Amino acid sequence: MGDTKKTTIVLFSGDYDKAMAAYIIANGAAAYDHEVTIFHTFWGLNALRQETNIPLKKGFMEKMFGKMMPRGADKMGLSKMNFAGFGPKMIKEVIKKHNAMTLPQLIEMAQEQDVKLVACTMTMDLLGLQKEELLDNIEYAGVAAYLADAQDGNVNLFI
Amino acid sequence: MGDTKKTTIVLFSGDYDKAMAAYIIANGAAAYDHEVTIFHTFWGLNALRQETNIPLKKGFMEKMFGKMMPRGADKMGLSKMNFAGFGPKMIKEVIKKHNAMTLPQLIEMAQEQDVKLVACTMTMDLLGLQKEELLDNIEYAGVAAYLADAQDGNVNLFI
Amino acid sequence: MGDTKKTTIVLFSGDYDKAMAAYIIANGAAAYDHEVTIFHTFWGLNALRQETNIPLKKGFMEKMFGKMMPRGADKMGLSKMNFAGFGPKMIKEVIKKHNAMTLPQLIEMAQEQDVKLVACTMTMDLLGLQKEELLDNIEYAGVAAYLADAQDGNVNLFI
Repeated sequence: MGDTKKTTIVLFSGDYDKAMAAYIIANGAAAYDHEVTIFHTFWGLNALRQETNIPLKKGFMEKMFGKMMPRGADKMGLSKMNFAGFGPKMIKEVIKKHNAMTLPQLIEMAQEQDVKLVACTMTMDLLGLQKEELLDNIEYAGVAAYLADAQDGNVNLFI
Repeated sequence: MGDTKKTTIVLFSGDYDKAMAAYIIANGAAAYDHEVTIFHTFWGLNALRQETNIPLKKGFMEKMFGKMMPRGADKMGLSKMNFAGFGPKMIKEVIKKHNAMTLPQLIEMAQEQDVKLVACTMTMDLLGLQKEELLDNIEYAGVAAYLADAQDGNVNLFI
Repeated sequence: MGDTKKTTIVLFSGDYDKAMAAYIIANGAAAYDHEVTIFHTFWGLNALRQETNIPLKKGFMEKMFGKMMPRGADKMGLSKMNFAGFGPKMIKEVIKKHNAMTLPQLIEMAQEQDVKLVACTMTMDLLGLQKEELLDNIEYAGVAAYLADAQDGNVNLFI
């Protein structure tokens, strides 16, 4: 146990390209037998949203955030050269051409490799996201749980 | 001493939401008895600015930067969905609703918990910021001091 | 060997200011006798592009990316207050005034200090960048090589 290396990533960003980088590193670390955790907070939570609209009771602000934020990994924009959605199309085009993996595929692979996907409960509250809207088989925790993992981590990144 | 865990955060970003994440992690780590340092550089220095306008002798460029950058944590924008200042209003609204802490409150809490707040002197020079404009009870240092802390850190993040 | 401290930086960002921060930390760590690696991925690869246009056979998408992305460190924009290129001029002006180093100078210094500059081959493929377009004396590797360095790193950052 003491010999297992640990990688933790805080995924704060809601950008397709940054989330790709996070999941590529996470999957690489898992292949290297690291214990890997991705802690999704703020806009990074959007990578865990289901694509379908799940009708839920929400206050006004929560509804606003819910509508304005991308519903799931496939809907996220780029951190650079987004060009109103044209950039993500280009990236997905070259991913296909080079037989690389899309973000939803990278997330699926992470789940298959037992990467621990955590949703930050405090920012879920702030943005009005509820468990019913997020992917199955993820965990829910706060900053204390993140720090418990990270303080023994070999590779800790904030993305 | 050797057993004390250390957390260091480089706060480069001048975004309200990213600075919140930095200070939430810092306060969590301090509660966990980590020695915590936040090294404010580039736009992250704005989180340490006082709200009031302190009249100081400055060159043209320094005046320009001073005017264009937010004066203090409360004036910072969001990294996503800023909508010309409407986004920060929404975030502050939901923070109030959920009894969470605003960024100025998180900074105050960090100071009470003895989180070491450092302003990067090199980027202060570049952006024309002077000590008189920044909060009291912070430290001033360069990249060498940051590295001296970080090289023994358990959790090192760049935000 | 076991006592040598290690610093690794993933440079994901294509922003002038963020790349400056990455190279300032890298040069500082090298001066501290750390083994230092900067792993350039996604937009961070642009910091390694040569300024001159190298004519190469490329597909349509690769040509588009090539044209839209900045050609080399000196052409990169700011993460904040870019103002269509005016921000970078201001930053370069104050760098000159304060006898600080520009990004191209910081990169040169890193090479002189034997900082290992790595270009991520997977994202080079995606963005259609070829070795002929990048600086001399850099290395080419993937995420596995990055992780091999990072898992023994004392300071690991994602910028």
